[in-house]
Amino acid sequence: MRKVAEYTYQVQPLDVDFSDRIRLTQLLGYLLHTAGRNAMENGFGMEALHEQGKTWVASRLAMEVAYYPKAHEIFRIETWIEDYGRVFTTRNFKMTGGDGSHMGAGTSIWCMMDLEARKALDLKGADYSAFVTGIPSLIEKPHRLPALSGEAVSRHRVKYSDLDFNRHTNSMKYIEWMADLFPLSLFQQRNITRLDINYVNEALYGEVVEIYRHQPCDEACQFEMRRGADIICRAGMQFDGPFNLMADK
Amino acid sequence: MRKVAEYTYQVQPLDVDFSDRIRLTQLLGYLLHTAGRNAMENGFGMEALHEQGKTWVASRLAMEVAYYPKAHEIFRIETWIEDYGRVFTTRNFKMTGGDGSHMGAGTSIWCMMDLEARKALDLKGADYSAFVTGIPSLIEKPHRLPALSGEAVSRHRVKYSDLDFNRHTNSMKYIEWMADLFPLSLFQQRNITRLDINYVNEALYGEVVEIYRHQPCDEACQFEMRRGADIICRAGMQFDGPFNLMADK
Repeated sequence: MRKVAEYTYQVQPLDVDFSDRIRLTQLLGYLLHTAGRNAMENGFGMEALHEQGKTWVASRLAMEVAYYPKAHEIFRIETWIEDYGRVFTTRNFKMTGGDGSHMGAGTSIWCMMDLEARKALDLKGADYSAFVTGIPSLIEKPHRLPALSGEAVSRHRVKYSDLDFNRHTNSMKYIEWMADLFPLSLFQQRNITRLDINYVNEALYGEVVEIYRHQPCDEACQFEMRRGADIICRAGMQFDGPFNLMADK
Repeated sequence: MRKVAEYTYQVQPLDVDFSDRIRLTQLLGYLLHTAGRNAMENGFGMEALHEQGKTWVASRLAMEVAYYPKAHEIFRIETWIEDYGRVFTTRNFKMTGGDGSHMGAGTSIWCMMDLEARKALDLKGADYSAFVTGIPSLIEKPHRLPALSGEAVSRHRVKYSDLDFNRHTNSMKYIEWMADLFPLSLFQQRNITRLDINYVNEALYGEVVEIYRHQPCDEACQFEMRRGADIICRAGMQFDGPFNLMADK
């Protein structure tokens, strides 16, 4: 048992975007993978939970990225559990480049869900105190994002390829849908330096999710996803400089 | 230098679909990754080629799958170059489960493209003869698929997340778009046992790709993707039994 565990990864060719740097969603995927791997090693991974009819669900995430590694680059992710309460547990991450340089950090808040009832479970039922470090996140906690109004800018019907092993939309898909609303020229000029997500409801197969985006969208951009009147998630993206969405269509 | 190389993988939680088994596109991704990894080890990987303004492009692929492993399962992929000619080289694959069981096989035909001119290059310019094994594919070569007529059943505008390091649509995205046309109930009842793809043209950012599907679509299903009058790719999927697309909406 390691309270703070470190894992080494290599950026795979299929992880990168047109600029040969790791995509935001893939990097976030490595964070989630690291969370799952560490939980598995400590005996409370997805596989063990599924056998008990339970699953982990990400509730809020934040990630700051100082450097996006290229294909074949090595990087490391350290992870530790900060604390846990009745419903939520906080897991933090530190990302380091192959040369030891600061790459970024993340923090995530999870709840445990009953797969049948689709309801949050009491975490005090299991004793995770031996795994708690009390070590705080290296970045600000996930921001609580505001409600948006206006017209939907895009919509998606949840498809087979969107589903994960929890039988709901893979949490990274929402971020992919949001990132895809930007013109390619933005990713040629700017990097996303911070991402915040609040997951509220799960979206299931066949459901239609509408995306709302706060206008104007300058160095930061806020999104909300809804299914009818229900909020699915809210997200915020910060860039490393201003851009003009209207000029860069 | 190994003429026949074997690599070991583990199915990651994010690789699987709602049924906890590896998705077809992810398994094909592991084949492409294996091809790239072996090419890199032999000195003609994507990184080396990109520095010369060249890239590998998959032209035709076929994969047969006897068993789809679950999350955390170990599997192995063996790969070897069968032969090469002026424009095309054939690379084959054998997939084996962690317990040594037969999992499937693949075969792929590649050409080398000039990144600037977007044209195929003469492979005889480089000498790959030391890497040629002459060992044939374990499955039938990729089928040459027929042209389809009728109405498009779906369309996609190529987005940021669809692009790969070659700056064109990731070859697996087409398969994802095709698989997503089936109802979820199909994947609850049936497995894809063979996939054939013929890539004809690349689709670039912002272009709209239309999908045509041959009707009726019973134990096998054929697809064509077009951009206006240009063929992008054709594909065929075979299932392990009949299904009725109309009944299982």
